[in-house]
Amino acid sequence: MEIKGIQDMYPENYNVCYGCGSKNEHGYQLKTVWEGEETVTRFKPDKVHTSIPGYVYGGLLASLIDCHGTGSAALARLKEDGKVLGEGKAERFVTGTLTVKFLKPTPIDDELEIRGIIKEIKGRKITIEARLIAKGEVCVTGEIIAIQLID
Amino acid sequence: MEIKGIQDMYPENYNVCYGCGSKNEHGYQLKTVWEGEETVTRFKPDKVHTSIPGYVYGGLLASLIDCHGTGSAALARLKEDGKVLGEGKAERFVTGTLTVKFLKPTPIDDELEIRGIIKEIKGRKITIEARLIAKGEVCVTGEIIAIQLID
Repeated sequence: MEIKGIQDMYPENYNVCYGCGSKNEHGYQLKTVWEGEETVTRFKPDKVHTSIPGYVYGGLLASLIDCHGTGSAALARLKEDGKVLGEGKAERFVTGTLTVKFLKPTPIDDELEIRGIIKEIKGRKITIEARLIAKGEVCVTGEIIAIQLID
Repeated sequence: MEIKGIQDMYPENYNVCYGCGSKNEHGYQLKTVWEGEETVTRFKPDKVHTSIPGYVYGGLLASLIDCHGTGSAALARLKEDGKVLGEGKAERFVTGTLTVKFLKPTPIDDELEIRGIIKEIKGRKITIEARLIAKGEVCVTGEIIAIQLID
């Protein structure tokens, strides 16, 4: 399988998440990669994901920030282990705390870009700052505290 | 139309939200009501909403907390205006800031109950504390700062 994002490297049985699992055919199948020092995930919302007409509903935006965060944490761990995308398996993180600030309505008719910065790595806990961009404007910001699952 | 929750009282054009709009046939169609001094919304997740096997993915839980919050804010405003469910139209709120804490994995095989407490009403801004319960245990807590839309 072509590795398009860290989610394609999740262990079997951990790759079924509605948001980010490559094996959930009903889900968003998000793909998170590095772009320089930042992580990035892109997603095109569907018209059904409306809140008020013309704009994306907050639950999807929170989901994107959330799954981008756990994906970014897995990328950060992989990098710390001296590996690049495609080498070995990714560790699976879950979210401890998610904070989302909706700065302005997010237009629904364009691709959304979610960008992340690794703020802190402290043992199993990785904190990510995220921002969601539509039509060149930051519409949503967020912070995710992700916790590494131990098999 | 029978009024099953505050969402059935949203003005035309504001009732299409994927999470809480009664007119979005693809969405969750959440219904929020009072139970005593607390607000409540119930939702049965589908198996596709998996995170790790057996548990609900965080994005849905964040969505439920979010939409329960805006529904609770609309209920609080209606009550402040001296009206009960079914009288007049509900005001439409959007989320300013959403904070979600995932305390433990949320089992996917049961109905989820989201309960809210109106913490503060300050002009157009209403703050709600929420908790999400599955099988009798609080799995997620959250806070929503909801902002009333002005037509």
